[in-house]
Amino acid sequence: MESISLARGVPATECLALEELADCARAAIERDGATVLNYGPAGGYGPLREWIADRHRVEPERVVLTNGSLQGFRFLAELLAPNGTVIVEAPTYDRPLKILDDLGAEVICVPLDEEPAIEDGAFLYTIPTFQNPTGSTLSADRRGRLAELVRSRRLPVLEDDPYGLVRFEGDPLPSVFELEGGVDVMYSSSFSKTIAPGLRVGYAIVPEALASELEDLVASTYITPALLSQATVYQFLRRGLFEPNLERVRGLLRARRDAMLEALDRELEGRARWNRPEGGYFLWLELPEGADAAELLTRATEGGVTFVPGVDFGGQPNSMRLAFSFVSPAEIDEGVRRLARLLAATPAAV
Amino acid sequence: MESISLARGVPATECLALEELADCARAAIERDGATVLNYGPAGGYGPLREWIADRHRVEPERVVLTNGSLQGFRFLAELLAPNGTVIVEAPTYDRPLKILDDLGAEVICVPLDEEPAIEDGAFLYTIPTFQNPTGSTLSADRRGRLAELVRSRRLPVLEDDPYGLVRFEGDPLPSVFELEGGVDVMYSSSFSKTIAPGLRVGYAIVPEALASELEDLVASTYITPALLSQATVYQFLRRGLFEPNLERVRGLLRARRDAMLEALDRELEGRARWNRPEGGYFLWLELPEGADAAELLTRATEGGVTFVPGVDFGGQPNSMRLAFSFVSPAEIDEGVRRLARLLAATPAAV
Repeated sequence: MESISLARGVPATECLALEELADCARAAIERDGATVLNYGPAGGYGPLREWIADRHRVEPERVVLTNGSLQGFRFLAELLAPNGTVIVEAPTYDRPLKILDDLGAEVICVPLDEEPAIEDGAFLYTIPTFQNPTGSTLSADRRGRLAELVRSRRLPVLEDDPYGLVRFEGDPLPSVFELEGGVDVMYSSSFSKTIAPGLRVGYAIVPEALASELEDLVASTYITPALLSQATVYQFLRRGLFEPNLERVRGLLRARRDAMLEALDRELEGRARWNRPEGGYFLWLELPEGADAAELLTRATEGGVTFVPGVDFGGQPNSMRLAFSFVSPAEIDEGVRRLARLLAATPAAV
Repeated sequence: MESISLARGVPATECLALEELADCARAAIERDGATVLNYGPAGGYGPLREWIADRHRVEPERVVLTNGSLQGFRFLAELLAPNGTVIVEAPTYDRPLKILDDLGAEVICVPLDEEPAIEDGAFLYTIPTFQNPTGSTLSADRRGRLAELVRSRRLPVLEDDPYGLVRFEGDPLPSVFELEGGVDVMYSSSFSKTIAPGLRVGYAIVPEALASELEDLVASTYITPALLSQATVYQFLRRGLFEPNLERVRGLLRARRDAMLEALDRELEGRARWNRPEGGYFLWLELPEGADAAELLTRATEGGVTFVPGVDFGGQPNSMRLAFSFVSPAEIDEGVRRLARLLAATPAAV
């Protein structure tokens, strides 16, 4: 039996516009090869910086393109957090947690719906829209209060927004960055979920002085980011392929989320609780109190389905992250069926 | 008057195979887009790892592809050097020096022709062939002794070899890696000088246990390197374009080195000393004792020529690095002419 991955937070192959991107990569070199193929600015490919700056209404100097947005997080953490206190959501994306741990930062985890009590930290890290791992979205009210924390200079905020554009339904909420006026909130995003992750094109928008520090760190780490990828993204944008592609990707992911919700409703009604995200890659499932998701996973190989236990993200032992981004709707259906079967065989979860 | 850069250690545009690379980038996605455009292994694009492994006769697991080889240096330094002692050549490439300084490592500079006295350092860093900044090449004898340091477990060695293949004449010497048997010497190189730097495709070959540590660090820094660039390089290789391109690049750079040596012989005979590298991007020029290359550079804007003072690389105040990689032979000729004019107006250098 082939295992079905509800663990991998990566896009299904059909989300990737292979043919268009192949032609954009060729065009990136044909049109601007002398720039794209040589060393260049630490902040990344000029035309793409300008496109992003324009979209977010900031000066291009404030946009720093990085080899994926996690690399940007690491740079910012290296600059701001060494041996400091960083406030994160509980649960939150595991890779930043590991980076902060490596850097010796003290991490304070604040449940998603609570106010941070600490106000003298290095910064607060939030993924307010379709969060990894929970798929949940911060309310407008809470966003406003985060913006106010920055405006009043009580706490710097880094808003990570890779999933915001991957919305299937409902109205988008303003970002913390927008609510604050786009001045001091540090904002990061990437084209991993909207175009393709293998390109590794992420970006951070930060105040100008910090952008310049960031570029110094970039220059002494890898000199110049991977320009071919950035120029390929730029060709994709200038051809007007971004919005249609986003619509297509949203449709593919919506079908997967729907398949997961339908299967959960059918298979696990009354035996677990889960949310209904309006976008993104993930939803969050809580087994009854006392159940152990990590223990459940150890039986997954025989059971033919995988997921990530919530504890990996600083969540409760009875929680798990289910990704609907990678496998097909039919596989999702079968995956949830297998999960339900495993759960039925778990004394603590009955 | 447009300034002539004998400072920039970057390839002239004509060294970049624009047309071929445009088609390779397209083919990289057309042939393997589902892999290239998604998240993948931290160690990089499989087929390229295998090609490199084959070339250096090691297992692919020992090859870690990074976004440029400086990124690999940083990772290795983070793993091996924190607060330790690192032995470098004097002078040496400035960017690693900055990284070691950032990491709080103690750096011991040993003149190129001397034996390192310290044998309990974290590692020794060497660029034995056409070194940046001097263009000089370590003798076979000295290479053998470095290999012996590793074999006898007295000192780990990191051999950085980005320029080795860019040889215009003379016979190549075996690498320290080869002399040691390809077991414990850490070896790094890249395709920046042999194909194109903007692709940012570097690699490190290290013992398997270290490769695995390196991959962990990669995964928690940028998850996956920029795969499109790596797959583009792989297409370039599999089409048999690498060797012919290398021949072409060598020819272009040889003409530039020749132009520089001819101009120096003509303009500065008896007024300065310089070496005659058989390859690479750079040569090293020493003004008479007491001259100050940094002071000379401040007058360069009016004089219309730039270079990098030797002190930037830990060299003597009267030394400078001259790059012949970037501008045309005619510009090199004119640049050296301007340099000679500036020098003639410098009391200390007459």
